[in-house]
Amino acid sequence: MSRHGKRRAKKLGLPPGTLLPHVEEAHPEASKITILDYDDKRFHAEQTYLVDSLLPYKTSQTVTWINIDTINDVKLLEKLGAAFNLHPLTLEDIQSADQRPKLDDYETYLYLDLKILSYNQEKNDIEQEALSLVLGPTYVITFHERESSVLNPIRDRIRSHGGRIRRMGADYLAYCLVDTVVDHYFVLMEKLDEKIESLQDNVMSNPTPTLLREINDLKQMIITLRKTIWPLRDVIVRMERRDSNLILDSTRIYLRDVYDHTIHIMDTIETFRDLVSGILDIYLSSSSNKLNEVIKFLTIISTIFIPLTFLAGVYGMNFRHFPELDWQYGYLYFWMFNISAASSMLYYFKKKGWL
Amino acid sequence: MSRHGKRRAKKLGLPPGTLLPHVEEAHPEASKITILDYDDKRFHAEQTYLVDSLLPYKTSQTVTWINIDTINDVKLLEKLGAAFNLHPLTLEDIQSADQRPKLDDYETYLYLDLKILSYNQEKNDIEQEALSLVLGPTYVITFHERESSVLNPIRDRIRSHGGRIRRMGADYLAYCLVDTVVDHYFVLMEKLDEKIESLQDNVMSNPTPTLLREINDLKQMIITLRKTIWPLRDVIVRMERRDSNLILDSTRIYLRDVYDHTIHIMDTIETFRDLVSGILDIYLSSSSNKLNEVIKFLTIISTIFIPLTFLAGVYGMNFRHFPELDWQYGYLYFWMFNISAASSMLYYFKKKGWL
Amino acid sequence: MSRHGKRRAKKLGLPPGTLLPHVEEAHPEASKITILDYDDKRFHAEQTYLVDSLLPYKTSQTVTWINIDTINDVKLLEKLGAAFNLHPLTLEDIQSADQRPKLDDYETYLYLDLKILSYNQEKNDIEQEALSLVLGPTYVITFHERESSVLNPIRDRIRSHGGRIRRMGADYLAYCLVDTVVDHYFVLMEKLDEKIESLQDNVMSNPTPTLLREINDLKQMIITLRKTIWPLRDVIVRMERRDSNLILDSTRIYLRDVYDHTIHIMDTIETFRDLVSGILDIYLSSSSNKLNEVIKFLTIISTIFIPLTFLAGVYGMNFRHFPELDWQYGYLYFWMFNISAASSMLYYFKKKGWL
Amino acid sequence: MSRHGKRRAKKLGLPPGTLLPHVEEAHPEASKITILDYDDKRFHAEQTYLVDSLLPYKTSQTVTWINIDTINDVKLLEKLGAAFNLHPLTLEDIQSADQRPKLDDYETYLYLDLKILSYNQEKNDIEQEALSLVLGPTYVITFHERESSVLNPIRDRIRSHGGRIRRMGADYLAYCLVDTVVDHYFVLMEKLDEKIESLQDNVMSNPTPTLLREINDLKQMIITLRKTIWPLRDVIVRMERRDSNLILDSTRIYLRDVYDHTIHIMDTIETFRDLVSGILDIYLSSSSNKLNEVIKFLTIISTIFIPLTFLAGVYGMNFRHFPELDWQYGYLYFWMFNISAASSMLYYFKKKGWL
Amino acid sequence: MSRHGKRRAKKLGLPPGTLLPHVEEAHPEASKITILDYDDKRFHAEQTYLVDSLLPYKTSQTVTWINIDTINDVKLLEKLGAAFNLHPLTLEDIQSADQRPKLDDYETYLYLDLKILSYNQEKNDIEQEALSLVLGPTYVITFHERESSVLNPIRDRIRSHGGRIRRMGADYLAYCLVDTVVDHYFVLMEKLDEKIESLQDNVMSNPTPTLLREINDLKQMIITLRKTIWPLRDVIVRMERRDSNLILDSTRIYLRDVYDHTIHIMDTIETFRDLVSGILDIYLSSSSNKLNEVIKFLTIISTIFIPLTFLAGVYGMNFRHFPELDWQYGYLYFWMFNISAASSMLYYFKKKGWL
Repeated sequence: MSRHGKRRAKKLGLPPGTLLPHVEEAHPEASKITILDYDDKRFHAEQTYLVDSLLPYKTSQTVTWINIDTINDVKLLEKLGAAFNLHPLTLEDIQSADQRPKLDDYETYLYLDLKILSYNQEKNDIEQEALSLVLGPTYVITFHERESSVLNPIRDRIRSHGGRIRRMGADYLAYCLVDTVVDHYFVLMEKLDEKIESLQDNVMSNPTPTLLREINDLKQMIITLRKTIWPLRDVIVRMERRDSNLILDSTRIYLRDVYDHTIHIMDTIETFRDLVSGILDIYLSSSSNKLNEVIKFLTIISTIFIPLTFLAGVYGMNFRHFPELDWQYGYLYFWMFNISAASSMLYYFKKKGWL
Repeated sequence: MSRHGKRRAKKLGLPPGTLLPHVEEAHPEASKITILDYDDKRFHAEQTYLVDSLLPYKTSQTVTWINIDTINDVKLLEKLGAAFNLHPLTLEDIQSADQRPKLDDYETYLYLDLKILSYNQEKNDIEQEALSLVLGPTYVITFHERESSVLNPIRDRIRSHGGRIRRMGADYLAYCLVDTVVDHYFVLMEKLDEKIESLQDNVMSNPTPTLLREINDLKQMIITLRKTIWPLRDVIVRMERRDSNLILDSTRIYLRDVYDHTIHIMDTIETFRDLVSGILDIYLSSSSNKLNEVIKFLTIISTIFIPLTFLAGVYGMNFRHFPELDWQYGYLYFWMFNISAASSMLYYFKKKGWL
Repeated sequence: MSRHGKRRAKKLGLPPGTLLPHVEEAHPEASKITILDYDDKRFHAEQTYLVDSLLPYKTSQTVTWINIDTINDVKLLEKLGAAFNLHPLTLEDIQSADQRPKLDDYETYLYLDLKILSYNQEKNDIEQEALSLVLGPTYVITFHERESSVLNPIRDRIRSHGGRIRRMGADYLAYCLVDTVVDHYFVLMEKLDEKIESLQDNVMSNPTPTLLREINDLKQMIITLRKTIWPLRDVIVRMERRDSNLILDSTRIYLRDVYDHTIHIMDTIETFRDLVSGILDIYLSSSSNKLNEVIKFLTIISTIFIPLTFLAGVYGMNFRHFPELDWQYGYLYFWMFNISAASSMLYYFKKKGWL
Repeated sequence: MSRHGKRRAKKLGLPPGTLLPHVEEAHPEASKITILDYDDKRFHAEQTYLVDSLLPYKTSQTVTWINIDTINDVKLLEKLGAAFNLHPLTLEDIQSADQRPKLDDYETYLYLDLKILSYNQEKNDIEQEALSLVLGPTYVITFHERESSVLNPIRDRIRSHGGRIRRMGADYLAYCLVDTVVDHYFVLMEKLDEKIESLQDNVMSNPTPTLLREINDLKQMIITLRKTIWPLRDVIVRMERRDSNLILDSTRIYLRDVYDHTIHIMDTIETFRDLVSGILDIYLSSSSNKLNEVIKFLTIISTIFIPLTFLAGVYGMNFRHFPELDWQYGYLYFWMFNISAASSMLYYFKKKGWL
Repeated sequence: MSRHGKRRAKKLGLPPGTLLPHVEEAHPEASKITILDYDDKRFHAEQTYLVDSLLPYKTSQTVTWINIDTINDVKLLEKLGAAFNLHPLTLEDIQSADQRPKLDDYETYLYLDLKILSYNQEKNDIEQEALSLVLGPTYVITFHERESSVLNPIRDRIRSHGGRIRRMGADYLAYCLVDTVVDHYFVLMEKLDEKIESLQDNVMSNPTPTLLREINDLKQMIITLRKTIWPLRDVIVRMERRDSNLILDSTRIYLRDVYDHTIHIMDTIETFRDLVSGILDIYLSSSSNKLNEVIKFLTIISTIFIPLTFLAGVYGMNFRHFPELDWQYGYLYFWMFNISAASSMLYYFKKKGWL
């Protein structure tokens, strides 16, 4: 089960919106807040540990991106919630790293829950990182489960003077973040694609039982990917629709583009599923083919030698009156008969296609 | 079949809304009614056996939670029905413990049918407990199939001064009850998760036929869970929609949160299904692998010894003219031939990958 | 194929609305018509053979239930059609006993096609009985394929003074009839439930090939049930909707209750399907397990005796120079070797888990 | 692939609406046009080779049925198109015999594409015949792929004075044609029903490999049927809806009846699919049962004789010191031991249920 | 994975609408632009390397078809984008050859992404070629992944005076291009049809393991085809709907025709899928039949010779007191017994249907 379920089980009976102090979190020091503030002409970067220093950005006309690289600093969350009028449920959602992607429209702001997926080579599994996003009129607040370089390209684009991102609003910044998250799925899918191809080769040449486990693991990864993309599709559709005035029309056309990408990913995932189920078919058939081969071999050996052994047994009998035994060339005839019998049986098998 | 079906079969021909006196119910004494009455400032708890003493709460402005820990006290149900203007069908629904979750809007009140699920270790099965809920303008009446501690955390929250629940209306209380029921599903799913993991380990190491039964039982449990959650999702969607004025807007945002949880559960259930069907695949493949192994072993033994046995038979023949038998080292040659033949066959099998 | 299809094939080229004189029907005497006429205060029962005597009931303010226990009396159908302004297609539908449940709204009346299902022990199959229902403003006309006691409980309820049915209109009577039909499905499902349980036990203990046929028969019955309930669900939904003014609002709430029952049945049918497909899995796996057991046994016997037989063959050879044969304890050594070889092989099999 | 696809491939690059001169069509003579013109009182039948003689019927108030028993006479099609203002795409559609059933609303007329299906005993396949239908305000033009007697019953009904068809308009005539086409599907389904039943019997008694091919052929036929009925359902739904004023309300109620029939056919097709997949299950299980039987037999024979043969081998050994060989009743003991060993093994097999 | 996915992965972090200079593209010379300009009376063809020379066509009342046979000339794309006011995302889409078919409505123009599919005999795979299409009020711009003859028939139709295409607008030209693309799918399907038929023959006569791979490859091709057609259906539906005023009503009726063709292809694809899955069933059954045959043969040989060999062993025993050995006709009796035993066993097998 997902971590979220386990957290829910742990919170049994607590009122909704309760923030859980994480056990593992033991740093007494405050969490760092990174601020990027910009418009077409100006650009300002700042780091702070104080929520109060964020307040001017809330009402300023410039676009402000506030980033926090933790989701477990309960005090910070509470202060931010008070400063930006965030609903208790929003704060709870930010803290639960294991929700499915979703969009909640709180009228004064949009709350987005995203997942950054990456392939972990060592565990041979997909790794999830939560990215929560609050989109207000002129600001975007992002909560990242842990510090990572995934969003750096966007920071670079903001820094570089003259890019489109500098000319557009907070909604476009939010779009850029979503777009980057989706682009990372393509990297993951390239990885899965390689794994599928290597499996496909192995399954034909050497269908060992461990391969079945690998096929199953791959199937699980594809399902995980699917489960993350499917609700994301919904999120983007709802952003694109004209429900909220926090998203401008000029940004909507870009959201449609991200939407096309998620559809493309869904399509490819379906292809992956078909490929993997095809691999399973070939695996099962290959392994039953191996069995057939073994049984055929057994049949040939048995069918040739069982009658011959019988004949040898016959001439080993101790009957007193046994004419053949006294023949001059009896032993020779025995071998001649055997060789011709074996040959004709081999011929029969060949004709039947068993050899 | 469910108990409900059996009850329907028993009621064949009776008019709708008929309350069935339960056979097992033989306590002549009246059922206990627990009352919690509160608003922001006041809190009052009471226990009574008289329906009449409930009447003042019906019209008071404070929020009242009336709880009854039985669904079989026909007299009590009838009196309550008369006092709170409940429709005969509502009373019948309260009594039928085995309905699927549903929401009926009777305009003056909402009727909710919920199921509390828990895992029964001894029977290795999921246990259902009915929880019916009547939401009026300022009161919530709950009917619990049997006394249980599931709802105690909410009682504690009401008792503790200053919680959000004290500041909000009867609709929020109803939400809290639904939320608690949903939270219990997470506990159940953690249990299922453990069972799946243990099955997954067993199926690789030791695919016995009894495992198939276990896989099937697990599948049934997942289906039961699914059947309970699916209609619940509908119930919550309909509560959240602006159909009834018994639910305030401030509560709707919380219902959306419960809704997200049920979606999360549905998602996890789908994953469970995929996992279990993957386990079934591995089980079937493992058991056919075992067969292959056995057949391979047979083939190797047979293929090696059948020709050798034939040769031993040959030299056991009693032909008078049998040159080899008189050779000095005939017996030695026999063994040398046999050993080299067996070795080359073993080499052949190795090359074929059968060893 | 259903009888309906066969009738259609027979009517090839006839104009629509043509009533087919049934071949099997040879009674020259007229069909009996049973009339129950009632309101809150009065109750009147009557039997007649004349359609004309029904005319006063058509316009009277009391509720009238006209029941006819045949669908093959063409003359009666035509007269009734004329008297109550029934559309030719309605008459044709009444006569076709094998249609799927449906509701046709002819504005002045509603036409309902229902199926009463029961389990026939001897044929081990589900039996269908058509029940057609015409709901006018103050009357209900029912056509029953053959005389049966299924609707008697409703007759008793009407007779007994003071029941709800006496206070309500023709639409409530129609609802009671539909409810009774649905209640009979629960009886049938209890029967299926028993069959599934007995199959489940058999399939584990003794998976004979005839069981597969039984599993398949059961699957067919479940499909039949499903095919009858599914359109019924639609019928009830359309009755409940505010399309027709023949159904009063006070009755709609009861229809919702029947609707819940049909959903409950659909749910249980889905569970049955899952159970039966689980049984099929266990059957197939059990029967392949049996094969594995047989093959394992063969392997053990063969693997132990084939090498021993070879050895016995060796010491039966007639080589002149054969040192072992002259040994004092050669025969003893032979047995000692054999027993230890057999034991070690048995140990090997045990370790492999083949025993 | 269907002929249509092949025609499309051939027409590659030609403008839409291009009529293809059929290669096989070599009759220089003009095609015969049959005309039935009628209203409540008058009836007139005529045959002509000239399109011009149709023009008066176009505007007359009587209902006119123009039938052409070919779809390949390009010149006729072009003239008709000009006379009745048919769209080039309509003409192209008439000529393509292999389209799926469809309804095109050209405002001044409705174009219907229907398929008459029949079972061809010799080819053991379903045969398709295209029937195109143009419904104008007072006329119906039908194009039949080849002359056939399928529509004769309708001609007879028109001829016979006083039938409902004479009192109603062109839309009712169109309905009658559709109804007749649908009625023919019932004939086909009766045929399929017989085939399924005969397969069901065969598969239990004698599961030969050729049966699999037959099962597959049947499955293909059911799929073909399904593919023809499914779009027809759409066609009828769209005719029934109030989109076009070419269909009167009085006819709509009849179309609903045809609609019910197509739903009935769809239902039966689903049942057929389930039956055929059940037959496949039984076939596969029967054939694996046969294998089991064979293997069991082999096991019994081997298990009984392999140890006995070993024992016989033992007493054929030539050890000098071999006490048993000199015993008085050694040979008798040998047989006694063998018989008791074989008996106990047979008993063991019986107990295991292998006999 | 598709090339598109790989390109996305490469563009990670770049702003949307960024055009990627293709590595393989090293031609310094400009790309050729082909222009066809026409109306009912005039026709003008031109080739140019300068985007500026296109500008007059943008506003002229004649229909202009601008074709570019590359998608990698970044400079050309940027100039065209500026000249015709194309959105940066449109330019990016043109460059990405591997998107799924789609329609984007930019209000001043429609952007269509199409795929031309053809069967590559050597690779035994389906080959994709991107065709992007910009439909403005009086012009159509097409971007073709590489030079090809697919669209030549349309060029010929435009050149030939008097065709319908000359009388209609740019929207009809766009329709013609879509229609041609769809027509090419029919060619591909004819190819697949042949492959299926040849597989069907092979699988019955000779079910080799390589056939499974071929079946799987075919399944993949069908899935690819399906994935291309399915979104195309959507594209055409959206063109046909009255959303955009760039498409005239007179053209819509033709789009409905193309829509019917895509539905026809979808239908045929479904049939192909059923056929291929039927082939898989037959393959699996054939290969298990072969195994059965082999096992039966083994059984017959073993069952006949194992008892006989035992008997021969018996008479090879060296018991001193062995009455049969001294019989005059002992050896004769031995053969007589053997032959009769073998015959009765053969008779038994025949009766069982194993021969």
